[in-house]
Amino acid sequence: MMPGDGVREVKVSRFVRGDAEPARDRVAHEEPLEIQLAGAPLAVVMRTPGHDLELVTGFLLTERIVGSLAEVESVRHCTEAATPEAEDNVVRVTLRAGLRPDLEKLRRNLFASSSCGVCGKATLENALATAAPLDDATRIPASLLLALPERLRAAQQVFDETGGLHAAGLFDTTGRLLVAREDVGRHNATDKAVGALLRDRRPTPPILVVSGRLGFEIVQKAALAGARIVAAVSAPTSLAVDLAEEAGLTLVGFLRGPRFNVYAHPERIRG
Amino acid sequence: MMPGDGVREVKVSRFVRGDAEPARDRVAHEEPLEIQLAGAPLAVVMRTPGHDLELVTGFLLTERIVGSLAEVESVRHCTEAATPEAEDNVVRVTLRAGLRPDLEKLRRNLFASSSCGVCGKATLENALATAAPLDDATRIPASLLLALPERLRAAQQVFDETGGLHAAGLFDTTGRLLVAREDVGRHNATDKAVGALLRDRRPTPPILVVSGRLGFEIVQKAALAGARIVAAVSAPTSLAVDLAEEAGLTLVGFLRGPRFNVYAHPERIRG
Repeated sequence: MMPGDGVREVKVSRFVRGDAEPARDRVAHEEPLEIQLAGAPLAVVMRTPGHDLELVTGFLLTERIVGSLAEVESVRHCTEAATPEAEDNVVRVTLRAGLRPDLEKLRRNLFASSSCGVCGKATLENALATAAPLDDATRIPASLLLALPERLRAAQQVFDETGGLHAAGLFDTTGRLLVAREDVGRHNATDKAVGALLRDRRPTPPILVVSGRLGFEIVQKAALAGARIVAAVSAPTSLAVDLAEEAGLTLVGFLRGPRFNVYAHPERIRG
Repeated sequence: MMPGDGVREVKVSRFVRGDAEPARDRVAHEEPLEIQLAGAPLAVVMRTPGHDLELVTGFLLTERIVGSLAEVESVRHCTEAATPEAEDNVVRVTLRAGLRPDLEKLRRNLFASSSCGVCGKATLENALATAAPLDDATRIPASLLLALPERLRAAQQVFDETGGLHAAGLFDTTGRLLVAREDVGRHNATDKAVGALLRDRRPTPPILVVSGRLGFEIVQKAALAGARIVAAVSAPTSLAVDLAEEAGLTLVGFLRGPRFNVYAHPERIRG
């Protein structure tokens, strides 16, 4: 398979039992992406190049930069940078005429760091802020849930090559995969998947499945995007559990058939 | 084993072949920590509680908030918050008399998001900025390197319980583990390990080993802390490779005896 956008080939020294030999290896592609809003730098995300406009679109929503896409005029790669590489790594967001961002508020929201991605909230209260609790009729059988990691895995192009990319997939209640995206960051993969549907003016379906672990950040993004069930192949953190409980999301961990754990709101899963 | 600071016990519904039963599970503890500098909020990191002052001390250095610890008067938990919980989650940094932070510059550096932790740089140039290239005499045999993951693992208290915590360990050139720390974020684990030695006025030893994957951020932190060899059990990203090459760090991936790959500066490893 040829290396795609998500993969880069590098030279390595391969040591086996003390003997080194030159070899080539494929690694997950990681580059900084600067997001500019209304002409000013807003954030830099370290991401896997590709689906950048989807990433930024999802980020705008799940980081509460905008309340809805209706506020956004355009999301475009920069076309005035000094080098083609710089153009690839800068995306400019323009708001609708008459709308101006509260940059100081955005900075307060964003200047922060976190374990898996942005924490993005400059106060503890902000960090725990979330969408209104959900009350909806989404119900799925356990057997459907068990089938999803394999479907996500089948859609992943790069992971098997590098061991370095995370995946996020959005599924409907029949278990159909609507979109899957990969990235060095699982929160970026989530933003790309959410943004892909948003750009098609399609609603976020109720089920998000991510590879790896589940931190606070993913649950917050899922809640703000409108998902109802968030599932991961590995462990959740305590704050992910708390937030899911509070926000009314069903939180599933260790989803590795034939078993899984439900850490919050199990009522949406039928045995 | 009793749940420690790094672990929280939660109720779960355990589904096995479609049957749900109530159970208890241990998850990695994740809480927001607000870092205040000179009276103003600087950043929020999502971290595993414990070793907070070490985390902040390491963060100050590896995120270039200060040039050296000599600029810092004190690093303390807040003692004036409304609740004990809030006090646990706020750390205040005071600078030496006469020193004032350039808050606008710090904000530019920090307001950003990333795949594994802060990216923390508001421009691409900043994101690629790093310490001066290293040229030193550190040399270790491959056999020594191969022994390190097991030593780090033996020092990890929480991982086996939850599957949710990352570890970072600092080793000297004889393979002795000087300090190991765990956290939901591997960059936090790195900051805690670096900060622990800094607070004891001990220099950063040359070898950093982290569980999991290796992104740009960890390499940057390692370079700024003064490490020479960075090794991970899993894959590096392309930008981690580039930065290690440029900064003169030896970058080791897939360190799983009997083999490993060296992605940059293999000259420090003897076969």
